[in-house]
Amino acid sequence: MTLVVAGRFLLIFVAARLLAELLVRLQLPTILGELLAGVLIGVSGLHLVVPPESGVAVAPWLVQLFSGLGAVSPEQVLQLSAESYPFLQAVASIGLYALLFLTGLESELDELIAVGVQASSVALAGVVLPFALGSLGLIGFFHVELIPAVFAGASMTATSIGITANVFGELGMLRSREGQIVLGAAVLDDILGIVILAVVVALASGDGLQWAPILQLLLAAAAFVVAAIGLSRTVTPSFDALVDQLRAPGEMVVASFVVLCLCCFAATAIGLEAALGAFAAGLILSNSRHTEAIQETVKPLVSLFATIFFVLIGTAMDLSVLNPVDPANRSGLVVAAFLLVVAIAGKLVTGWSFLSDQPTNRLVVGLGMMPRGEVGLIFLGLGSAAGLLTPSLEAGILLMVIGTTFLAPLLLRLSYSWASAGLPSIDPALQPASTTDVD
Amino acid sequence: MTLVVAGRFLLIFVAARLLAELLVRLQLPTILGELLAGVLIGVSGLHLVVPPESGVAVAPWLVQLFSGLGAVSPEQVLQLSAESYPFLQAVASIGLYALLFLTGLESELDELIAVGVQASSVALAGVVLPFALGSLGLIGFFHVELIPAVFAGASMTATSIGITANVFGELGMLRSREGQIVLGAAVLDDILGIVILAVVVALASGDGLQWAPILQLLLAAAAFVVAAIGLSRTVTPSFDALVDQLRAPGEMVVASFVVLCLCCFAATAIGLEAALGAFAAGLILSNSRHTEAIQETVKPLVSLFATIFFVLIGTAMDLSVLNPVDPANRSGLVVAAFLLVVAIAGKLVTGWSFLSDQPTNRLVVGLGMMPRGEVGLIFLGLGSAAGLLTPSLEAGILLMVIGTTFLAPLLLRLSYSWASAGLPSIDPALQPASTTDVD
Repeated sequence: MTLVVAGRFLLIFVAARLLAELLVRLQLPTILGELLAGVLIGVSGLHLVVPPESGVAVAPWLVQLFSGLGAVSPEQVLQLSAESYPFLQAVASIGLYALLFLTGLESELDELIAVGVQASSVALAGVVLPFALGSLGLIGFFHVELIPAVFAGASMTATSIGITANVFGELGMLRSREGQIVLGAAVLDDILGIVILAVVVALASGDGLQWAPILQLLLAAAAFVVAAIGLSRTVTPSFDALVDQLRAPGEMVVASFVVLCLCCFAATAIGLEAALGAFAAGLILSNSRHTEAIQETVKPLVSLFATIFFVLIGTAMDLSVLNPVDPANRSGLVVAAFLLVVAIAGKLVTGWSFLSDQPTNRLVVGLGMMPRGEVGLIFLGLGSAAGLLTPSLEAGILLMVIGTTFLAPLLLRLSYSWASAGLPSIDPALQPASTTDVD
Repeated sequence: MTLVVAGRFLLIFVAARLLAELLVRLQLPTILGELLAGVLIGVSGLHLVVPPESGVAVAPWLVQLFSGLGAVSPEQVLQLSAESYPFLQAVASIGLYALLFLTGLESELDELIAVGVQASSVALAGVVLPFALGSLGLIGFFHVELIPAVFAGASMTATSIGITANVFGELGMLRSREGQIVLGAAVLDDILGIVILAVVVALASGDGLQWAPILQLLLAAAAFVVAAIGLSRTVTPSFDALVDQLRAPGEMVVASFVVLCLCCFAATAIGLEAALGAFAAGLILSNSRHTEAIQETVKPLVSLFATIFFVLIGTAMDLSVLNPVDPANRSGLVVAAFLLVVAIAGKLVTGWSFLSDQPTNRLVVGLGMMPRGEVGLIFLGLGSAAGLLTPSLEAGILLMVIGTTFLAPLLLRLSYSWASAGLPSIDPALQPASTTDVD
């Protein structure tokens, strides 16, 4: 068992790191590298790590290698591979919850309030437009069924705070007006997106779309988030006082994990996704005096286990459904192209969705809202796991996530270097993007 | 599923922390608290978390609670509890390997060499005496079968570096002659103990005790450790150089984890326990420039997941076999008492096992070698998992671990306060133990 598990961890981490390091050097988000690593070693690639339910066989040379090294028969290696897959998934889900917790933790609720009106307008537009255009378009033009269409629409609502914050930081624009609006809107988008996710997944496991349960779940999810924000103001000081009293080592990470488990427990108890609970736990502790210490202890968990989550998403993707040579794939390709266009356009126009009495680079705001990154992937991962998506819709969402995550940093740098001459909201002392290369 | 898993995590962490905090305040090792928490919520206690193979039913009120909150039937709760247990075990095993990695990482090989002769003598005596007395005694007096007897003997060889270092540190004796000898010997003991463990577990899954495979495995395990120490001198600079080149975030924890997986993979490939691989990975990186940074990223993993490992050991223990009222238990109780006496005496006499031209408090050395702590528990956990032990032998080893871990700090403080008046090896500026209370 251990040989196969250790071998798989090695494959996953080495592939993910090689590609992440490559993409960092290309100034692209590392998450794309982890995803591509999964595609490379998975169902659409070398068949080194494949989900048992895919029916794809593990590459024979790898089976032979494990069989030879472990002194077990090839059949046993195949069985161990299949049996250990739920273990990988369980570890990946710890990474997912830790990542959502960290996302909530890094939400600057106070800064959000400072740019509240513009950010809310951008966020709302950035959720409603892709969701409505995506879902209705899939149903109207492509006759996709209701639940998968709604889910695909929902997967386009999120904005990756991490990727946007990285690029803005690199360009020195984090504290600019555009940067503040985008980050504020991204936080709101996360909240709205995860509420939608919690509702859609809960509905999908029920009896289809009916208004009463939708309303009930939406209210429950909204109340959950509002309660979390309220608790972050009221209960967090008690949490801090309690942590200060703890003396057994590792108190910070365990106390945070207890809050995380409590919130996941509460979320599932009222019929919502545990993912919402994990995010809410982060929101609650985002107001703690110990936020930075908590981040430091949670980050290693995210680095290890969220990597596995993203790689596993990649391994499960069957990209052959997008092979343009096969005529049967044409409709799937059109759907994928449609999703990508809606995902780009639906966020780009948010730059023009607000009134402003100050000069603001609206293109930068729209581009900043574009990358779906890890949050889009969480939607994809949970939707796949719940069996809500067809292979071609899965591949389409994957392309949409990759496309927006890949294009946003490139276009942001480009638009910045065009605009850096004149716009007053950008600090003129800063150099154009090309010279801020970390090299 | 998530509700039950989150609920179990909550039970485990809250119970473990409450007791750990209590024991810290009693100046006792927190690991005892985690273990007792497991006993409290497990098979011998409230039946809140029980291994499916124990055949013990989960407490009805908890099933009702989960069933009510999660809107699933009690039967489903029971099924989910049983199905999610392997997940808990998998997470616990990550904690185990992370802990062994950290133990290896914190081994000061250079300091070991400085007190080499005395420490080696103490370590060797502390391994040979409990192992020989324990195994032979169990076979000769109590007619225990060969493999369980050897395993129980092996479980008495280890010394807990962590607990000893804590108490010595608290008494200000870490840099005293006694402290250096004990810590050096504890490192050696860990190495010898884990080599024995790797050999015994491998043998137990084979065809019983035969000299050729024993010799082969012993040589392989010794070669593995020697190779790890060699690699720590030769390959670690390349590891450091590589880590310095990495730019994707989380590089330290992922790079360490890759080394950990590689060593576990290599250990299992040559037929040894993955535990030896994890420890060897720590030894290799103990010479890195980044050792402290690695420790910081690994500690949250240990705090979270090794806690689960220790609590699960406690939950699985059936202490009713030690109930003295039942006459059927008398022989088991005698075995437990025998193990405890051998475990105490076998380490205590190591204080007189070396020559020294300087005055040395030999009682302090012997007491410092006594606590088995986490290493003894790792033996117990792996032996139980491999099905090598009878319930009464399991309970006996548990009592032996608890007894030595509990007594060692108390007796060390006592002997220190007796001796602190006169012995030249103890810094006279230091106050007696009672005033160094963290309060």
